[in-house]
Amino acid sequence: MKIRLEKNAYGKNAINLSKIIRHNDNHEFRQISVSVALEGDFDTAHTEGDNSKILPTDTQKNTVYAMAKEHFTSGIEDFGIILCRHFKKNNPQVSKVRIEILEHLYRRMHFNGREHPHAYISRGNEKHTSLIEQDESGITITSGIRDLLILKTTDSAFKDYIRDEFTTLKETDDRIFATNCEATWTYNTIYLDFTKQYEMVRENLLHTFAFHKSLSVQHTLYAMGEELLQKNENINQISMVMPNKHHILFNLGQFGMENNNEIFIATDEPFGYITGTVTRE
Amino acid sequence: MKIRLEKNAYGKNAINLSKIIRHNDNHEFRQISVSVALEGDFDTAHTEGDNSKILPTDTQKNTVYAMAKEHFTSGIEDFGIILCRHFKKNNPQVSKVRIEILEHLYRRMHFNGREHPHAYISRGNEKHTSLIEQDESGITITSGIRDLLILKTTDSAFKDYIRDEFTTLKETDDRIFATNCEATWTYNTIYLDFTKQYEMVRENLLHTFAFHKSLSVQHTLYAMGEELLQKNENINQISMVMPNKHHILFNLGQFGMENNNEIFIATDEPFGYITGTVTRE
Amino acid sequence: MKIRLEKNAYGKNAINLSKIIRHNDNHEFRQISVSVALEGDFDTAHTEGDNSKILPTDTQKNTVYAMAKEHFTSGIEDFGIILCRHFKKNNPQVSKVRIEILEHLYRRMHFNGREHPHAYISRGNEKHTSLIEQDESGITITSGIRDLLILKTTDSAFKDYIRDEFTTLKETDDRIFATNCEATWTYNTIYLDFTKQYEMVRENLLHTFAFHKSLSVQHTLYAMGEELLQKNENINQISMVMPNKHHILFNLGQFGMENNNEIFIATDEPFGYITGTVTRE
Amino acid sequence: MKIRLEKNAYGKNAINLSKIIRHNDNHEFRQISVSVALEGDFDTAHTEGDNSKILPTDTQKNTVYAMAKEHFTSGIEDFGIILCRHFKKNNPQVSKVRIEILEHLYRRMHFNGREHPHAYISRGNEKHTSLIEQDESGITITSGIRDLLILKTTDSAFKDYIRDEFTTLKETDDRIFATNCEATWTYNTIYLDFTKQYEMVRENLLHTFAFHKSLSVQHTLYAMGEELLQKNENINQISMVMPNKHHILFNLGQFGMENNNEIFIATDEPFGYITGTVTRE
Repeated sequence: MKIRLEKNAYGKNAINLSKIIRHNDNHEFRQISVSVALEGDFDTAHTEGDNSKILPTDTQKNTVYAMAKEHFTSGIEDFGIILCRHFKKNNPQVSKVRIEILEHLYRRMHFNGREHPHAYISRGNEKHTSLIEQDESGITITSGIRDLLILKTTDSAFKDYIRDEFTTLKETDDRIFATNCEATWTYNTIYLDFTKQYEMVRENLLHTFAFHKSLSVQHTLYAMGEELLQKNENINQISMVMPNKHHILFNLGQFGMENNNEIFIATDEPFGYITGTVTRE
Repeated sequence: MKIRLEKNAYGKNAINLSKIIRHNDNHEFRQISVSVALEGDFDTAHTEGDNSKILPTDTQKNTVYAMAKEHFTSGIEDFGIILCRHFKKNNPQVSKVRIEILEHLYRRMHFNGREHPHAYISRGNEKHTSLIEQDESGITITSGIRDLLILKTTDSAFKDYIRDEFTTLKETDDRIFATNCEATWTYNTIYLDFTKQYEMVRENLLHTFAFHKSLSVQHTLYAMGEELLQKNENINQISMVMPNKHHILFNLGQFGMENNNEIFIATDEPFGYITGTVTRE
Repeated sequence: MKIRLEKNAYGKNAINLSKIIRHNDNHEFRQISVSVALEGDFDTAHTEGDNSKILPTDTQKNTVYAMAKEHFTSGIEDFGIILCRHFKKNNPQVSKVRIEILEHLYRRMHFNGREHPHAYISRGNEKHTSLIEQDESGITITSGIRDLLILKTTDSAFKDYIRDEFTTLKETDDRIFATNCEATWTYNTIYLDFTKQYEMVRENLLHTFAFHKSLSVQHTLYAMGEELLQKNENINQISMVMPNKHHILFNLGQFGMENNNEIFIATDEPFGYITGTVTRE
Repeated sequence: MKIRLEKNAYGKNAINLSKIIRHNDNHEFRQISVSVALEGDFDTAHTEGDNSKILPTDTQKNTVYAMAKEHFTSGIEDFGIILCRHFKKNNPQVSKVRIEILEHLYRRMHFNGREHPHAYISRGNEKHTSLIEQDESGITITSGIRDLLILKTTDSAFKDYIRDEFTTLKETDDRIFATNCEATWTYNTIYLDFTKQYEMVRENLLHTFAFHKSLSVQHTLYAMGEELLQKNENINQISMVMPNKHHILFNLGQFGMENNNEIFIATDEPFGYITGTVTRE
């Protein structure tokens, strides 16, 4: 019997950083959370406690703060690329660098139709994410959106499914479709205005969701992916996670009242969980 | 020695309800979480297990769903008043009814400048709350806003404070002021368009926050309260909770770099916690 | 119209501190979260931005860490008393100091019946809390237990309650009684072994909960309070919060099966919420 | 350009179920959360909205509750195997079934050294998990432990690591090693007393952690894996996730005091994140 180390990685997570980019007329506020993960030749660190190839996670953290001064000036993807290259170049023992950046989104306050130069309000739970990976074969960028809480009150049906001894669900032509969508997509180039791309992808996903005549969550998930790939040639693949946040008809009949799709119990658990990847061949 | 029951209450919390209000041209989607609490003559329930004066919390829940059909048609304050009156009128053993409603805010999706008739997106963490209370002396309405995450990148100073043996904080003329504000205010009438009032209060709070030359969190908290009471005669009192979400300068000097108020560590804990009530005499 | 400041306070929350107390034979590990709140003469801080009476929350934080070295050696109540006295004595503008300490509980690992001298495992969600307050009238200590998740599978009934048009709940002689109990009690002296008291109160609450023939949550809540006050003369009052974590019978009948109190849906929301204070006259 | 569906799955998550197993002398209480995921021939559901091969997630939920009556009588792994086989056998369109079960652990209350027959208290955050997967090649069982919060106050060093321009961390021979460990291991047979195995694995992991002279998190992670594989021949592989919950020395020197590894700032973020898999060849 031989025991050995297999897949492993280490790094610093949740490096929470905010930056004020000082323009002439106003301040730009950005807040991100960066995670660094390194893979490589770390066998002796595990088997012998030999740290000679270990770049401490504390140093990784310092590096992120220090490099943010000069290099975090536009999209999180661009900053991630810089960080990847730094760690890869300076650490020959590292075979793969993964930089994950999550941006907390803010928008400027508006008063009387004018933007305030330095007051901001959170854009909510929704977050822009990006995973930048670099190994021998180059850099891959997978950006995403997380906690996109969307719903439609109609144009959603679910019927003609399998029935068995445990079926109690009623078929419906008209239900609430609510989801806390997470999507991640892979760019096929690193030369893009990633912030603009993010807003375009987001708009595209929302548009398909809103106008689709849904026959199931799967049906809409695929439509959203297909539409995005048709419209955006910089993207080759998108993966989506769509938990079905059920709104269940409350039984008003027991009190002699009708419930014409009006009153629902909003539930968190259990929830349907639908995932899918749509790709371009 | 005599042992006795003092202050007590019971009810159902987190009655999560969604409603589609079906208009001719579009659907209006609303999602709320209702909590009911009853105080009154419940001594024998505690001391003897006598449930004859207990309206089960399950029945309270059913009541909220049933009454939402006809009565949840406008502001959460209006629905709360209806619920209060129902429980108070039907339960002579109850001396006080408290209805707390928290509304999860959504906004319609927009495409090409037009509102979609039935697709919604979450407005984020921010929630509209209301506590409606009824006892012998009548009804009191205390509405609020919760999880209002706001910040300004300048116009915030903190100096000239007490110094002692444990002081290490540096005085500053220019810091980030970020807070996850919670405010609650009491209306002096129940005849108002409460949804409109909410948006007006919110706008007023944001405006003062954005334009105030802050010398401390306390200074801005009071200014927000004072300005609101001056502008809105329907409100007699406002209480605010303003956790100071610290953004701490990262020490770039240790790497021979300057940090001109650019790069910050965004922290959650520990946090300053400032509370205050501003009132009209 | 005159506008003025009413009740207000400020301080530092979530000062997360761990300590190794180094004994001869072993290490004692403690982890606490301290919150400081000061009330007093802070009007001009609010109205004029005058910080001359403000002890910065950053200094409060430093004080807690510094004083922990010498003074955090036994119960959290004792450390809280020291902190109260420090802030009260050194700040004449302060009328009331509130120190809240929450202890994350750990226990030593055991192997072959022996305690390990320096390896610990979390005791779980349960937390020991204490609120120490000092004003002109002296010091008050209110200790507590939080997130005490307990349940019994029988000896719990609920029946003979009010029935109305919205009643659907079935009466029962036998249900699961589960709660995430929070209790706080006030000591009538500051000269106690508070850690020992905590374990005694905890044991007493668990014992009553386990053996009580419950006719309702209220009935058991009161019994727990009454029993504690009868057994522990150092305590004059106890307040309890007992959310009813419902386990609802799953309807197996729809599949031709019987559910003899065996299979339940464990739910989080909505939940019954029962609160009460039991006091000694 | 051709667009197509790639990897996809769907199912019901967070089916929260509790069960009372009624023995002669006492009750056994169990609480689990089950998630079902199906992979298979679901292309037309996505591309055409054809639900004829879709077993609704609502039916999956009903199935779990119904089958729990007869089949959830011992370890979660055994119940998972039954569920896998049911869904696989009845759904020829399904190529792979994944059942994930998370058990919330409770222990009986003890009084005067005796177990109470029906009163329980939570064992804390720690959870026993299991992923049971069935495809054409058979059944795989990967069990795990989650949220195992452990620490040691000494026998942990970290030094002799890479130094670069961003290094500020001091080398140490003696630090706190705290982690919220997650481990998952794969059994090489389905004929085991899985509950007993769980307790054995847990004990083994704790023992290695407590007694290891740690030179780094990686060093201890590997030791824990190696030791387990040496001791337990039913397991071929273990993966561990060990976030480093940093306890950072507070700088008492600024107040003229010494900190001899006594007073620490307990932090949540950022955190080191170390992962590794140890396997038997």
